[in-house]
This record gives sequence, structure tokens and C-alpha cells, in this order.
Amino acid sequence: MTDRIKNFLASRRHEGPILVVDLDVVRENYGAFAKALPDTRVFYAVKANPQPEVLRLLADLGSCFDCASVAEIRQVLSAGATADRISFGNTIKKERDVAEAYRLGVDLFAVDCREEVEKISRAAPGARVFCRILCDGAGAEWPLSRKFGCVPEMAVDVLEHAHRLGLTAHGVSFHVGSQQRDPAMWDGALASASAIFRECAERGIHLAMVNLGGGFPTRYLKEIPGVKSYGAAIFEALRKHFGNRLPETIIEPGRGMVGNAGMIQAEVVLISKKSDAVDETRWVYLDIGKFGGLAETMDEAIRYPIRTAHDGAEKVPCVLAGPTCDSADVLYEKEPYLLPVSLEIGDLVLIEATGAYTTTYSAAGFNGFPPLETVVI
Amino acid sequence: MTDRIKNFLASRRHEGPILVVDLDVVRENYGAFAKALPDTRVFYAVKANPQPEVLRLLADLGSCFDCASVAEIRQVLSAGATADRISFGNTIKKERDVAEAYRLGVDLFAVDCREEVEKISRAAPGARVFCRILCDGAGAEWPLSRKFGCVPEMAVDVLEHAHRLGLTAHGVSFHVGSQQRDPAMWDGALASASAIFRECAERGIHLAMVNLGGGFPTRYLKEIPGVKSYGAAIFEALRKHFGNRLPETIIEPGRGMVGNAGMIQAEVVLISKKSDAVDETRWVYLDIGKFGGLAETMDEAIRYPIRTAHDGAEKVPCVLAGPTCDSADVLYEKEPYLLPVSLEIGDLVLIEATGAYTTTYSAAGFNGFPPLETVVI
Repeated sequence: MTDRIKNFLASRRHEGPILVVDLDVVRENYGAFAKALPDTRVFYAVKANPQPEVLRLLADLGSCFDCASVAEIRQVLSAGATADRISFGNTIKKERDVAEAYRLGVDLFAVDCREEVEKISRAAPGARVFCRILCDGAGAEWPLSRKFGCVPEMAVDVLEHAHRLGLTAHGVSFHVGSQQRDPAMWDGALASASAIFRECAERGIHLAMVNLGGGFPTRYLKEIPGVKSYGAAIFEALRKHFGNRLPETIIEPGRGMVGNAGMIQAEVVLISKKSDAVDETRWVYLDIGKFGGLAETMDEAIRYPIRTAHDGAEKVPCVLAGPTCDSADVLYEKEPYLLPVSLEIGDLVLIEATGAYTTTYSAAGFNGFPPLETVVI
Repeated sequence: MTDRIKNFLASRRHEGPILVVDLDVVRENYGAFAKALPDTRVFYAVKANPQPEVLRLLADLGSCFDCASVAEIRQVLSAGATADRISFGNTIKKERDVAEAYRLGVDLFAVDCREEVEKISRAAPGARVFCRILCDGAGAEWPLSRKFGCVPEMAVDVLEHAHRLGLTAHGVSFHVGSQQRDPAMWDGALASASAIFRECAERGIHLAMVNLGGGFPTRYLKEIPGVKSYGAAIFEALRKHFGNRLPETIIEPGRGMVGNAGMIQAEVVLISKKSDAVDETRWVYLDIGKFGGLAETMDEAIRYPIRTAHDGAEKVPCVLAGPTCDSADVLYEKEPYLLPVSLEIGDLVLIEATGAYTTTYSAAGFNGFPPLETVVI
């Protein structure tokens, strides 16, 4: 909770849930990444929070950008960054979107299969591509599926295919899983990456870049290692697997860049019980839920810290739920959430570390509720 | 697939996913409910699809409306229905929203605890309230949690509390679970409702109404009983538990009213494999996913029928995923989806029975993708 956010909220009349993002924290986070990994370029994962003010600040600070769609590419260009600082990092792209990105000057594309390479060779001739490989995601709090990437053995063929089709086989990317709490997780992926570099070299293809992905965490309820520890562990793994011939590297922080810069203020709408006798569990309903910006509570994956004016009072386990008529709109139930026993209907609460993956996730108008209001200060 | 939808899509250039809703089907569904339950008033669950054209049609047909928020109440009033045809059916309401609804003329409110009764007694003095009771939801495809309702024993006290505070204790409501495939599920809930009627009568409170809730299914991949079977089973259960003193009844169909009236056209963005050797699973990526309107694929709960131009060809199991950079944006994986082996990148597919719980669920701008475009014809 920064003083700037505190002052802003003090002067606001609460009409509905709001996310407040403090640019000073984003600036600090950018500085910490730049310091912890001085030879690595930062490609901010725009999807984490594409607010124009955030993009403008990062563009001014010299950041590059990882975009998921043509719309995000346009947002970044509008924020003042040039196209040579943009990567089209989604492995799933319509060919006409590749063409449009290329027309806008983007020259760096993610792939994970031959089919995508072929689209890019037609729609963005000569562009640079990097191939994403699968990672197991152990240690990450947000589930990492097999959706993106191919096995390392196939990556060599994919990159060779790109090379033959006149593209620049530029490198390898991976993602160790979002909210990754173990800095050692980069080691295994870098071992695979260096093996791909060697195999490609044997085929006469000289890769240049390793995209170390995102995964850098935000502090929620549990402690996390600092960015410095990640930088040290990654540098050590790079030296171990690449020796003196270190590749060009980039990182794609999203949550790690903006997560702790934002805080949601919400209101307690109802506190009740289901029974006077058999079920004494307290149910606490907020005016924000799974469809209003807290989608990452899916399967109770991300547990946000929640502050109230009663902190310090005795706490009791509560089921926490959102305001919609959807029975799935429950935030924490399997593992109930501890909240002050003196919490009351109408009280305001602060949901911390909500700067990433909230606003844009919120539903367009579910149950008539508008998407999460956002203010950048 | 109606001829009207077919003709509309034939004349459209596909730029992105679109939901097309056919009002003729909504009209037929309304007629089927009115016929199957002739003595029961229909309160359409607006949250299922609040498109103005849908609300206007239903208002013209004489439907009443179940609203989840003040915004939905305003939408219904704009569609031409009067406030006496509106129920504020959300058990979780801010007191100022109750006051605003009351000011707009709404006089019927859902409650499931004493705290909510107290809000209504202050903000909507004299209004009618019905108390929601818990139901186990067995047989329903969309998970029913304990989020709404109290145990039947407590409902009697809640209604008595309302009565003492000058409200009209109007009745009881329950919900047997969305996409409920077993018409017999109303029997147990009606047994509880009739016990509450008796106990209230003993305390001198004469309830008038049973809200039978929603739950009426749409046909996805599995066969479902027709609306007639639901009508018959419900009428039988009413007679069994209420004898000759049948209460006033209402139903709140949402999915059952609009689900099969809509169809989404989407595009195959990529078809690929993760490995040439060890994992031959086909991955099919569409330009719509969990955050673009298909949120009900959460935990693979709702399995939509998907039609392609290759139907009739040999089918192979596929993992089906959306277009965003989110690893959780996978539609069907645990139980892979059978799709034609001849399906190709760029092909259009039709996702059937998507008229309910799609557009308003879609994210405001996740990954830069706009909310689901919707056209009502």
C-alpha cells in the first residue's frame, strides 16, 4: 500500500470496485529487473496490464514489449514505442494478423510448430522467429498447461524449417510458469535451450537469442524470493549451459512488473450464514468476484492479501464470494480465508497485489456489472 | 442451426468470432414454457442473455424478468416491461441498490438470511420477499455451490423476521442447478418448500408463492428431456406436496430460453502437435476461448456441439484451446474433443447452443481481444 494510493482512495467516494495502479511502483520494478539482469532486455508482457499510462511509462524507460495480438501491438505503438521493440509473442496467430503486424514493422515472432512457421514465411518474409519449447511448470502457482511450445527435439526441426523458408531462425523461448516461486526452475529449461543451440549449429543454423519468458512472481500471501535471486540463478544457469558463449537474452515479466503496483478497493455487500445450527461457516460477499476482475482465483490458484480496517482483531475462517448470481463465483472456499470477526456489511476492503491480470480479465457485463474500473496514478 | 442463421452467416465476412441469436427460437421456447407450465409465470433470467432485442421480444410476449442487478432492471425497463414484472433475484445486494430498485418500482426481492431482510426492510419498506433455500444440485452439469440459499429450517425464521419487520413474506425459492437433466430433481425441493409453508402458517404467516428457479437445460452433446417432461414432473411434485392448495408458482429459465437460439461462428487459427514422436495429440486452436465467451467450459463443464464443413469425415481426438496467451485458456483436454481429421487452419466452425452465458461472460479486452460480437436476427 503506497501513500499515493492511500491518498487517492481517501478522496474517493466508493461507488463500485476500483483498481488503482501506482506508476512509481512500476518504475521501481523496471529498475529492479534492469539491475538484476543487466545484459537482458525487458519485453513487458502487455496482457498483464495494458493501461496506456503503464505502457507509456515503460516505453519511456526503454522497455521492449511482448504482445499477444495486433490490438496490443497498436496499443504499444500508440504509447510511443517503435516496432523494433515489439515481439509478437503469441504462438497462435491468424495469418492475416501476422501480415498486419509485419506491415506495422514488427519483425520478431513466436512459433512452436511448422504450421505457424509457414504462415510467417508467407505473411512476414525474412522475419526473425523463435521457437517455444515445453516446460513442466513445477513450482508455479498459476497452472501451466501444454498449450504453448513443443518438445525440444521438435524445436530443432521447426527452426530448421524456418531457416529453409527464408526466415531468420533467431532463438528459443520457454516459460517456467506464472508466479514461479523457485528461481532454480530456469536451469532445466536452459539446458534444453543450449542443446537446441548445439543441434542447430550442427545443421549450420546459428541461433542468437534465448527468451527466458516470464514467471517472475508478485508477493501475495506467501513470501517470494527477490528479483535479485532470480537474476543470480538465471545468470548461473546461463553460464553453466552456455559457458563463455552467452546468447542474447530477453525476459517477459508481466505479473512481476505490475502485480504489486495495483490495489483493488472493494465493498462487503453481505455477511451471512447458511444455517443457525448445522453450518456455522461465515460467508462474506464482496462487490467484486471471479467475473469482475479476480479470474485468477480460479481453482483458488492465486490467494490475494486482503486488508480491512479491523486488522489486528480476531480472525475467523470465511468463505469469500463475488456478487453475481453465478454459483461458480466463489473466490475461496476449499481453503477458507481468515477475516476479522468484526468485519461488517458496508465495510471497504483492500485487495493487494492486483495490478496484473485483473482489469482485462473482467467480464464485459456479466449480471449487468460493468468491467473493473481502473485508475492509474 | 436455423435457416435464418445460415443465411445471415453466408452473407458475412468472418473477421472474428460472432454469436448470432435467432429471435424465432426464443419465441418458440417461450411458447413451450408457457404451454408446459400453463399456471406458472415465466421470469426470464436476464443474465443469460441481456441483448435488448431479446428483452424486447420477451417483454412483448408477456414474460416477467429475474434481474441480478440494478443495471439489469434498467435494461428490462428500457425494453418496455413494467416494474411489477421484475424480481430482484440476487440474494446479494447493496442496500443502496435495493433502494434504487424500489424507487424504480420493483417490489419483489430474494433473500437468504436475516441480514438481507434487514436491508430490504430499511430500503424497500413493505416489499415482498421470498427466501431461497439450499438444494443439492445433483444431476446438474454446471456446478451448484452453497453460495445461495439457507437450510430450510432457517428459512422459516428468515421469513418470520421479514414479517415482523413489516415486509410481506411472500414465498420460497430454490434452484436445482443449471443444465439440470433430471426433471425429478424438483420433487425434493418442493417437499422442503411445502414444509416451510406449513411451519410459517403455524406461526400465522401465509406464504403465497414458490419460485421453482431455473435449471431447464439446453441440448448440447447429450440428449435432454423436453420442456413438457419438466412441466409434468413439476406439476406432479406440486400436487404431491401441496395437495389441492397449490401455491402461485414462477420459473426463471435462462439457458432454457435462449441457449439453443444462438450459434457462434469461429475460425480455426492453428492445428499442430507438440511432438513428432512422443505426443501425437492434435491441438486445435480457435479464435474464441474461455475468455472470449466460452467461460462455461470451465472444468470442461459444458460441452458444446461443434459443426464443421467436414462433418461425415473420420474424426480424431483433439485438444481444443482458445487464442490467448493464457495457459488456462484450454476448452477441452481431459476429455479430448472429436473433430474431423480433414479440418484445416482457416476453416470456420459453428459452436451450437451458445445463446446463453456467452457474450456477457467474455472478457473486456484480455490479450487485446474485444468481447464477443453479438448479432440478434
